[in-house]
Amino acid sequence: MNQPNICDLQKDQRFEGFLLVRSADQRTGGNGSKYLDMNLADRTGEVNAKVWDGNAQPPMPGTVIKVRGGTLEYNGRLQLRVERIRGMVDSDDVDLSLLTPCAPETPDEMMAQINAKVAAFKSEPIRRIVQEMLRRFDERLQYYPAAQRIHHAERSGLLHHTTGMLKTAEVILSVYPWLNSDLLYAGVILHDLCKTEEMDSDAMGVVRDYSKEGLLLGHLVLGVTRIQEAANDLGITGEPVVLLQHMMLSHHGEPEFGSPRKPMFPEAEVLHWVDLLDARMNEMGTAIAKLKPGVFSEKIWSLDRRLYRAEYENLETSQEG
Amino acid sequence: MNQPNICDLQKDQRFEGFLLVRSADQRTGGNGSKYLDMNLADRTGEVNAKVWDGNAQPPMPGTVIKVRGGTLEYNGRLQLRVERIRGMVDSDDVDLSLLTPCAPETPDEMMAQINAKVAAFKSEPIRRIVQEMLRRFDERLQYYPAAQRIHHAERSGLLHHTTGMLKTAEVILSVYPWLNSDLLYAGVILHDLCKTEEMDSDAMGVVRDYSKEGLLLGHLVLGVTRIQEAANDLGITGEPVVLLQHMMLSHHGEPEFGSPRKPMFPEAEVLHWVDLLDARMNEMGTAIAKLKPGVFSEKIWSLDRRLYRAEYENLETSQEG
Amino acid sequence: MNQPNICDLQKDQRFEGFLLVRSADQRTGGNGSKYLDMNLADRTGEVNAKVWDGNAQPPMPGTVIKVRGGTLEYNGRLQLRVERIRGMVDSDDVDLSLLTPCAPETPDEMMAQINAKVAAFKSEPIRRIVQEMLRRFDERLQYYPAAQRIHHAERSGLLHHTTGMLKTAEVILSVYPWLNSDLLYAGVILHDLCKTEEMDSDAMGVVRDYSKEGLLLGHLVLGVTRIQEAANDLGITGEPVVLLQHMMLSHHGEPEFGSPRKPMFPEAEVLHWVDLLDARMNEMGTAIAKLKPGVFSEKIWSLDRRLYRAEYENLETSQEG
Amino acid sequence: MNQPNICDLQKDQRFEGFLLVRSADQRTGGNGSKYLDMNLADRTGEVNAKVWDGNAQPPMPGTVIKVRGGTLEYNGRLQLRVERIRGMVDSDDVDLSLLTPCAPETPDEMMAQINAKVAAFKSEPIRRIVQEMLRRFDERLQYYPAAQRIHHAERSGLLHHTTGMLKTAEVILSVYPWLNSDLLYAGVILHDLCKTEEMDSDAMGVVRDYSKEGLLLGHLVLGVTRIQEAANDLGITGEPVVLLQHMMLSHHGEPEFGSPRKPMFPEAEVLHWVDLLDARMNEMGTAIAKLKPGVFSEKIWSLDRRLYRAEYENLETSQEG
Amino acid sequence: MNQPNICDLQKDQRFEGFLLVRSADQRTGGNGSKYLDMNLADRTGEVNAKVWDGNAQPPMPGTVIKVRGGTLEYNGRLQLRVERIRGMVDSDDVDLSLLTPCAPETPDEMMAQINAKVAAFKSEPIRRIVQEMLRRFDERLQYYPAAQRIHHAERSGLLHHTTGMLKTAEVILSVYPWLNSDLLYAGVILHDLCKTEEMDSDAMGVVRDYSKEGLLLGHLVLGVTRIQEAANDLGITGEPVVLLQHMMLSHHGEPEFGSPRKPMFPEAEVLHWVDLLDARMNEMGTAIAKLKPGVFSEKIWSLDRRLYRAEYENLETSQEG
Amino acid sequence: MNQPNICDLQKDQRFEGFLLVRSADQRTGGNGSKYLDMNLADRTGEVNAKVWDGNAQPPMPGTVIKVRGGTLEYNGRLQLRVERIRGMVDSDDVDLSLLTPCAPETPDEMMAQINAKVAAFKSEPIRRIVQEMLRRFDERLQYYPAAQRIHHAERSGLLHHTTGMLKTAEVILSVYPWLNSDLLYAGVILHDLCKTEEMDSDAMGVVRDYSKEGLLLGHLVLGVTRIQEAANDLGITGEPVVLLQHMMLSHHGEPEFGSPRKPMFPEAEVLHWVDLLDARMNEMGTAIAKLKPGVFSEKIWSLDRRLYRAEYENLETSQEG
Repeated sequence: MNQPNICDLQKDQRFEGFLLVRSADQRTGGNGSKYLDMNLADRTGEVNAKVWDGNAQPPMPGTVIKVRGGTLEYNGRLQLRVERIRGMVDSDDVDLSLLTPCAPETPDEMMAQINAKVAAFKSEPIRRIVQEMLRRFDERLQYYPAAQRIHHAERSGLLHHTTGMLKTAEVILSVYPWLNSDLLYAGVILHDLCKTEEMDSDAMGVVRDYSKEGLLLGHLVLGVTRIQEAANDLGITGEPVVLLQHMMLSHHGEPEFGSPRKPMFPEAEVLHWVDLLDARMNEMGTAIAKLKPGVFSEKIWSLDRRLYRAEYENLETSQEG
Repeated sequence: MNQPNICDLQKDQRFEGFLLVRSADQRTGGNGSKYLDMNLADRTGEVNAKVWDGNAQPPMPGTVIKVRGGTLEYNGRLQLRVERIRGMVDSDDVDLSLLTPCAPETPDEMMAQINAKVAAFKSEPIRRIVQEMLRRFDERLQYYPAAQRIHHAERSGLLHHTTGMLKTAEVILSVYPWLNSDLLYAGVILHDLCKTEEMDSDAMGVVRDYSKEGLLLGHLVLGVTRIQEAANDLGITGEPVVLLQHMMLSHHGEPEFGSPRKPMFPEAEVLHWVDLLDARMNEMGTAIAKLKPGVFSEKIWSLDRRLYRAEYENLETSQEG
Repeated sequence: MNQPNICDLQKDQRFEGFLLVRSADQRTGGNGSKYLDMNLADRTGEVNAKVWDGNAQPPMPGTVIKVRGGTLEYNGRLQLRVERIRGMVDSDDVDLSLLTPCAPETPDEMMAQINAKVAAFKSEPIRRIVQEMLRRFDERLQYYPAAQRIHHAERSGLLHHTTGMLKTAEVILSVYPWLNSDLLYAGVILHDLCKTEEMDSDAMGVVRDYSKEGLLLGHLVLGVTRIQEAANDLGITGEPVVLLQHMMLSHHGEPEFGSPRKPMFPEAEVLHWVDLLDARMNEMGTAIAKLKPGVFSEKIWSLDRRLYRAEYENLETSQEG
Repeated sequence: MNQPNICDLQKDQRFEGFLLVRSADQRTGGNGSKYLDMNLADRTGEVNAKVWDGNAQPPMPGTVIKVRGGTLEYNGRLQLRVERIRGMVDSDDVDLSLLTPCAPETPDEMMAQINAKVAAFKSEPIRRIVQEMLRRFDERLQYYPAAQRIHHAERSGLLHHTTGMLKTAEVILSVYPWLNSDLLYAGVILHDLCKTEEMDSDAMGVVRDYSKEGLLLGHLVLGVTRIQEAANDLGITGEPVVLLQHMMLSHHGEPEFGSPRKPMFPEAEVLHWVDLLDARMNEMGTAIAKLKPGVFSEKIWSLDRRLYRAEYENLETSQEG
Repeated sequence: MNQPNICDLQKDQRFEGFLLVRSADQRTGGNGSKYLDMNLADRTGEVNAKVWDGNAQPPMPGTVIKVRGGTLEYNGRLQLRVERIRGMVDSDDVDLSLLTPCAPETPDEMMAQINAKVAAFKSEPIRRIVQEMLRRFDERLQYYPAAQRIHHAERSGLLHHTTGMLKTAEVILSVYPWLNSDLLYAGVILHDLCKTEEMDSDAMGVVRDYSKEGLLLGHLVLGVTRIQEAANDLGITGEPVVLLQHMMLSHHGEPEFGSPRKPMFPEAEVLHWVDLLDARMNEMGTAIAKLKPGVFSEKIWSLDRRLYRAEYENLETSQEG
Repeated sequence: MNQPNICDLQKDQRFEGFLLVRSADQRTGGNGSKYLDMNLADRTGEVNAKVWDGNAQPPMPGTVIKVRGGTLEYNGRLQLRVERIRGMVDSDDVDLSLLTPCAPETPDEMMAQINAKVAAFKSEPIRRIVQEMLRRFDERLQYYPAAQRIHHAERSGLLHHTTGMLKTAEVILSVYPWLNSDLLYAGVILHDLCKTEEMDSDAMGVVRDYSKEGLLLGHLVLGVTRIQEAANDLGITGEPVVLLQHMMLSHHGEPEFGSPRKPMFPEAEVLHWVDLLDARMNEMGTAIAKLKPGVFSEKIWSLDRRLYRAEYENLETSQEG
């Protein structure tokens, strides 16, 4: 995708390329004719754009469009006068990560990793429940982030978080092989699925607010209910259902963090731990990356501490007095 | 080691074999002659024993002796009349795990795993500090447990806990390769070393009480001090020293659990979690093993919850209604 | 029901009447013949009983039987030799409150009060959901207590608690008439229904332990799921469903008491308050009733305080100095 | 009261009516002559006003005056030039609720309800104490609010809160008739009386700060002391005095909310709950009224949660799929 | 006082001396004649005693009596057969500290110290209030302990605690001379006076339970009320009264320890600390005195820690390696 | 030191005197010539200053310089044009308290008080450890404050706090003479020494941030380590070392305030108390001094309360009604 960055645009320059729609409204000008007023963005910035064609329909915020036009300066600010506009199509093969923060792998790649794990489950009831749940949430999984802000706040961040946890779960199982792998993998895959019900995200993975169900019930309790519905529809009852429901309910570890039950069997405990570790490594890694070596961050409220970026490059040289 | 279990002994039976000394005192009989009164144990039980030889010296509690003699019944209880007694020697090649709970690997095997990790450190200052610390605590590491009761309360349990954590640390590093492996491994190896100063253990890994230094300072703060001493003696200053000290100090995670500082860089955070996971898997695994499938434990105070042993064997059969 | 109390029985006395089965086993005597060994109870005590008829089948603990026989003394303790035995039938019209603590009204009377409230709901979706839920739990509602110990620990205590709360809810609505009465009444009726899944009670309302689902999920989260299932089966979606689920989930008020969400609309807040008030009046009233005027109880752990029985009878007389 | 709202005033308009004095100072103009500078308000807004008569004395903030004059524009803002000014008198029969938030009933109506309850007390000592207390706080009760901000922050809000609680107490007594009604009603009437000592309110029920006694002792402890003084003066001792004092002291329920003793008898417990319910219904009702159906509020700090205004109007229509 | 210790008594021994009455009842023997059955104590032990004189009246528990008689053995236990018995009188000049734990100084000596401080107050209102309060509680001050168990649980322990605090307050004032000494001394003298209303103590300073007023109100709130009454009776109002009341109310420092207000001026803050220090030095000193050097106590619940008795005697000798 | 205050400077005025350097940079003007741009301060304010001499080197922030020059107005703000500039020398005998907040005594006077106490220690090991520690931190002790903000935030504030605590400790020892004075004095002198490692202060006692060691380890744990190092170098082992280390570690009293161990012997408890009292008297005294009599402060966050300045001057006058 070879197009100029918004932050580099100058006036009187031609532009053709893909941009993310932040807002778009049809308005009526002083002369009574209609036009589109949009704010368009890539990862480097945002620009106001006008389409003076009275028939143009405003695209949905959160979608990507292709535009062609030229820049001008109006009231001291750069503006893009758009001549042609259309929605993005699959064959455009757009690299979304140039437009917004994205998971490092594509949704298809990550879904394939998940499906491979599920296909290998020894327990048929667990496999069928998990497959049914994935089927039900399939579309939203493509783009939902894992959280509004704290960690994996990026397009497809939920899949990113889930596949990261699967990797950790896999290696943990190699150390504690007596754990039941079907339970643990299933718990990882299901645990945050109902964040897609809890939050309202646009197709770029940007969350504006929580949903009614999210605020009144939360993704843990919604998740318990959804597992029940899937099991009911599949005609599955008994141990697998209640174990998966308990893992869903207990994965935040403590009542004060939203789990009315603490993990009561080892796989549920490990699920809580793997979730916390993956979220925290993402959060800490992101925060440390912004610091210079030897420097402390300001206090980070979600972690209740300052962070330190060690002078890693000085560790290997001898430092004798 | 082919010897009868104490729980199977009958009266008027010959016995020759190795037993653990729980207590041993020289006493004076009604006729003025001296004798040894001992309580001897294996993993299956405990028996009172007498040595009527007035010259026999009482062995140290916590050591292993070889005895030969015969059983008799006295006041309705079984007693062992010992004819010959000597201390255990290396060439006896006694399997201590028949006498007391022991780590599943030998101290030498576990030390070899640790030393292999240390030898591969890229950072010379960290490697030298860790090697110096291991050298200083070497002897006690052979037999110290990791805790008085909660987890790895067994002979060489500290090495068991440490090598278990090294395995987990290794696989975590494969998932988050941007972490500094020298720091994490060093943190794992050092983090509980001063439990050997904090608690008083006999040679079988049984802790009777905490030491004065343990009660007044604790193994975290003792550990910070010992790292400083080792670094001073080696002439090492700067970043590696203070990072290892912080990992030592913060590995309990929260002030209320004994860490005045929370982990402030990712390797310290991971150390805390690896420690918690290994301890908890040991504790939960042990508790679950005592339950029947489908049954809940009583409330376990250290975990503040009841545990459940799932009916794992029922997970793989289809359970459709 | 005109039968002697167990506490008044003397030896060599005839007995005919109804008793509660605490335990019953078929055993084999020294001569090889089978007999029944039972412990039978009324509210005043418990007596051991034998049926020497080898064909008699042991009745279920928690049921009521009619027995005829005579007392004798064996090894210094009173025993009942049973000659005839049969299960209680409806036409016996037994007054169970003489055998075990019971709610002051019959289940039928209490169910009628509940059904009358439901029939008057203005909201058809809420009425249908509540009726469906009552239908599903109907049988257990007859005898379940409201709790294992703290409050309304009696046969049909759950109905007792529910109808008590309905009365309070009704009068509260007269003070705050802008509250939605359908929501509040529905919340009252549904809020503890899943205690019948959470606990295992016998037919006399005695709870021996919590169930697997109760320990792993709890009656609040089970309740949210059951409302969803009922609504799904009835084809009802939207506002009524999620409001009832939130009231179910939030009725303990705080995360530390099991509600991951605090009440977020006034009817949910009032439900929490009415639940607490009715439970507490039952608990305090019971405790105070055991005290003499002017005396303090020992510390009551569930209330974290001592209680005082005021000298109410002295309040109305003038006490001028 | 037929006068224009301040928010509707235009320039060069006549005005005659009653306004609330927010501030009033005598100043000296550039020419040395004195004038009054005032800020006057009704419920719709505030306007600056001048009285150019050098003899006019500034009225007290918090009082109501009648003014006559005309508007003009000065420096782009509307100003009221006052020609005549006098204090409000009873015969003006001003509707204060047009000037400031007021309780929905008049102080006299509410006092009558309270006095009727007291007159019916069966306990003479309790009745005499309550009457004496009401007599001592009579004047301030006319206009004090129940709190500075959270709930019933309005003129006569304290009487509003008290009479609301009396209604709730009355209906609660119908459900739990074994409670002592004299104690409960007396507790309700007395419980916040010393808010009139704790806060400094002007005659319109606006609180600017807490008093010295309020900050150093609080209205609960002041209340205990005032009950003692009243009882001493009436020559009443014993049970009624200490029970009323305990209800006063414990009505906030927990030490962290200001009650060093938790309620130790049922009437004290009910008082705590009735207080909380009435305050919360007022606070929640006010907050919900500002929301549109289906919308959540921002987080409300005093309640530690967001509130939701349910779509009540959608509950009664069937919503089948 | 030259009399044998109870722990040294042998059978068939004469005894004449003073003993403390623990219990005393008039009973009727098998032959119908009345006698006294008593348990009598000194600090070394307790002995059963009989008075076979049917006219003897039982003395009050908590008082001291003089007895003459002889010991005998009955059913294997020592018994005292009392021939003469009378109550203690002042001229006996009994050393009570041989009978029960007592403060190291006499009540009169301690009251003299307190009165000397009060007489030197510069503030007349404070002096008059304190003198009035001392006058009202005078008699009970002679023997009340400072607490039921934790600290100064001894006869006249309240005076002991008060005079100890006066000494500390005096030296603190020498370091921070800007503090108002009248306020601080008055706070010290008044702060626990109402423990004499809160607890029921016998004349030997042994507390059996808390009083009704103590449980329902507590000594802090009782204290505030009593200061008000004293001030009312003396016609004193204003600053001195409310400051003393605040010091009384805040002297436990935090709501969770019974003070709804934290200390808000420096003298109140110092009062809290002086109280805590004197209580803690008494408690710690007593506990340490029971330990050998180098040894730790068990966990002491009121302090939430184990205590250590240092090897003080080893501190002064050089300990070079 | 007779020089004008900065707050009194007018334009076109001569100035000669000593000022504190807040910042100083060499810059290049429009014409390419170099000059110094400085901000200089005394206790009354701050002024911008220029040195147009291109060779002048910028002095260190936190140092004191002597300047001569004249004021002018530039862009409406006062500026100091400096003609001569040099660093302060000892013979200048500058009164630093006119430039920045300083302890009321000089460092030398305070060090003399400390040294006198140490010289009188009966325990040689304790004396040698304390002297060695003082020697190591000697230079920084001259000017370090005791805290960045809360208390004794002034030049030499650490010595001020230490000597204040020594006075309190001395008088406390007179009340509880059984305490070991060497331990208590040593604890006082050592307890905050490592604040000089924890914070980065300039020579005027102004702290800009915490140091790396301070943030990663804290002054308590650094202190334990430094005592160990000093003892190692002096060849001292055993009781004195571990007792001093425990006092260092426990002086904040509770885990949540940074002490993983609570004080376990009386001298450690008293140290904690003396530290808190001296800090709080400094903080409260400073806050009260800013208030008028009878007025409350805003809420002070470090104390979690509002403070009150009592009307002390009204206490001594009789206030009868």
